[in-house]
Amino acid sequence: MSARAVKPLLLRGARVVTMDPRRRIVDADVLVEAGTITAIGGRPVPKPAPQVIDCTGMVLLPGLVQAHIHLCQTLFRGLADDLALEAWLAKRIWPLEAAHTEESVYWSAMLGAAELLLGGTTAVLDMETVRHTGAAFEALESIGLRATAGKCLMDAPSSPPSLREPTERALQESADLCAKWHGAAGGRLRYCFAPRFVPSCTGPLLRAVSDLAERAGAVIHTHAAETPVELQIVQRDTGNDELSYLDSVGISGPRTALAHCVWVDKEGIARLARQRTNVVHCPSSNLKLGSGIAPIPEMLAAGCRVGIGADGAPCNNRLDAFTEMRLAALIQKPRLGPEALPAAQALELATLGGARALGLETEIGSVEVGKRADLIVLDLDGPHAQPAEADLISRIVYSARAADVRHVVVDGRLVVKDGVLKTASPEEIRRAANAQARRLRRAVGV
Amino acid sequence: MSARAVKPLLLRGARVVTMDPRRRIVDADVLVEAGTITAIGGRPVPKPAPQVIDCTGMVLLPGLVQAHIHLCQTLFRGLADDLALEAWLAKRIWPLEAAHTEESVYWSAMLGAAELLLGGTTAVLDMETVRHTGAAFEALESIGLRATAGKCLMDAPSSPPSLREPTERALQESADLCAKWHGAAGGRLRYCFAPRFVPSCTGPLLRAVSDLAERAGAVIHTHAAETPVELQIVQRDTGNDELSYLDSVGISGPRTALAHCVWVDKEGIARLARQRTNVVHCPSSNLKLGSGIAPIPEMLAAGCRVGIGADGAPCNNRLDAFTEMRLAALIQKPRLGPEALPAAQALELATLGGARALGLETEIGSVEVGKRADLIVLDLDGPHAQPAEADLISRIVYSARAADVRHVVVDGRLVVKDGVLKTASPEEIRRAANAQARRLRRAVGV
Repeated sequence: MSARAVKPLLLRGARVVTMDPRRRIVDADVLVEAGTITAIGGRPVPKPAPQVIDCTGMVLLPGLVQAHIHLCQTLFRGLADDLALEAWLAKRIWPLEAAHTEESVYWSAMLGAAELLLGGTTAVLDMETVRHTGAAFEALESIGLRATAGKCLMDAPSSPPSLREPTERALQESADLCAKWHGAAGGRLRYCFAPRFVPSCTGPLLRAVSDLAERAGAVIHTHAAETPVELQIVQRDTGNDELSYLDSVGISGPRTALAHCVWVDKEGIARLARQRTNVVHCPSSNLKLGSGIAPIPEMLAAGCRVGIGADGAPCNNRLDAFTEMRLAALIQKPRLGPEALPAAQALELATLGGARALGLETEIGSVEVGKRADLIVLDLDGPHAQPAEADLISRIVYSARAADVRHVVVDGRLVVKDGVLKTASPEEIRRAANAQARRLRRAVGV
Repeated sequence: MSARAVKPLLLRGARVVTMDPRRRIVDADVLVEAGTITAIGGRPVPKPAPQVIDCTGMVLLPGLVQAHIHLCQTLFRGLADDLALEAWLAKRIWPLEAAHTEESVYWSAMLGAAELLLGGTTAVLDMETVRHTGAAFEALESIGLRATAGKCLMDAPSSPPSLREPTERALQESADLCAKWHGAAGGRLRYCFAPRFVPSCTGPLLRAVSDLAERAGAVIHTHAAETPVELQIVQRDTGNDELSYLDSVGISGPRTALAHCVWVDKEGIARLARQRTNVVHCPSSNLKLGSGIAPIPEMLAAGCRVGIGADGAPCNNRLDAFTEMRLAALIQKPRLGPEALPAAQALELATLGGARALGLETEIGSVEVGKRADLIVLDLDGPHAQPAEADLISRIVYSARAADVRHVVVDGRLVVKDGVLKTASPEEIRRAANAQARRLRRAVGV
């Protein structure tokens, strides 16, 4: 179903946190036609009559954006806890990824996307595994999440043999997937080129990725500066610090999203800011894997572009933008004082910051006329979010939770209504995902 | 209604995480008679026929315990964000506490208790403000939370005049409250003596508290070692480090619960362990106020008794044991490695650790025959807690959330059924709490 065929929607009676340039918060109805926000308050209801969603007493926000997710890992949740990154990758994640089939990739994406949508995340930047990425796109097409996703690229000799691919074949498959999926579902689905991280990739692959992405107008999605071990490997192998090396192969600038960036010094921060490279902060993952605390306030002060993400389910173990926003605000304060990264900044990471990382800042990230309708509606009447007169942004960032999400609209389509997923059967997802997870566990022996 | 009058309950079909000495996880029905667990699997259903709660496919746990809460601050949620402890206290918390009336204390407790029960917390150690503590007990009596609560004590000359009380009057009121409430509601309610913290209290008051608590068999509940500023003040005023000073006035040992203990060195940890003083870890609060990260793994390795708590709503801003458990596990890992404070240890803090801090380890904290029936039932069927075959403790600590709580039993009474609070009207609480919060804001001018 194309976006244009979607019936008009009128979200009536909410308090709207616009995230527009003036950061206005207004009581207004929001009208959606052909997937686009066409009015915020004060316009006559159009004909044909729209579907009306009663949002009285609720809070309407731009859909939350998570700019670093691995949907293919959702089935590995709880199978790799309390391990350091290198062991976590080598002993669990890589063998499990290698055991994936089309079917398991499909249900892993469905399970993750269901959690994301029910929790108010409307758009993701996703890194799949090396195989079966088409199956993930099929899941995303059907469940209705906005996603920029890419096949993972690993061609370096040191990559695990079960995942390593010849450079040319990996690039060709990426180009083919890009041709098929970049712009699909009325523009809701996009392709990204996704080299895993520098230690897994050769120079020729990384330079070719830069070319392909530029030609296609696609995002490059990779990891950087997650652990000191990674930095040492890159220094040893390239003679360069990692951000400089990435820059030297053309992986920098506004079309690049670098997940983590925990271990970046002042010079590195200045470089990221100057080049407008997107940083994707993953606070839960950085804590759970023991990676560290990324210098996000320093990056924001330097003018860096920063989004936020849950990373994969096994290093979190939630895919919950509310958890990440709250944690992003909290973890800086012991280091920099309680004023560091206040609530309003955390909300920016999960809306405008994410939109920029996906290269979609003109289309999503705020509630403004002319933008695509990615909207969420929260019910903050629960005791945990009272008193109601407290600062609304504080209530959203510090008190609200995924379960407060009542309605979710993606690209004009009502995908969650009254807390119920409308685009897939949670029961079917649960059954199929569990069957696939069981098979993967057995295949790998965990 | 006394506990003995409660109808027998049969919780049928759950997977039971017992937290018994062998940490058994069993599929069993749990029978509750006269508020006590009388059978876990395998006993004929008694006469009269019990009320049966179908828990098929769900997970039954001991009720979670939060051993440091300020229910009187629930109405201040969102009114004091992104401030350091000293400014937070002086500019917001103390003026707001001083403006409390009986009615606002009552509704603050009701609001907090509703959130706690709905989120699976069945017992708390609570510090109220200096006045109207009886109103908090009335709220707790009616809503059905297990609580050990105490009037806050502040008699030092440096205390804010609006809260400071003459030593004798403060002690007399504490003794009167203890006489009235310690053991009330069939033992569900207990009194604790609650000096705010060393800088707010004189030596005579602290020594008298130690006497009164010992005579009454009551817990002492205070704050310690939360910030370096606090340590410096105590050193300046007493010539002693804070833990030694507390010990010298009789505030140490198994009957004492010290919230925070962020700034404790190796010697202090050894002292806490040796004396079996309870430490109450408040990870969200310690982050949000910028206090630091408490050395909990070091304390556990030394044999310390450690519970967990959300602290007051304005420094969190949730009262959510799931948030605190997950955060307790995560925040240690960048410092000590990803194996630090694994999921199973986090769950212990929120069950057995809390029970010890309340002096109730023979009564609550595990699902065992003979213990009081404080039980919670989780529905982990949501996509965020799949796959189902993953380690159950990992699912509970890292993935589960307050909104997954379906049923809650406190002292044998079913207080939450199917996610709905049965002992109070959330709508009435919301209305009254908001009216009181509005009055307090106006009175204080925030």
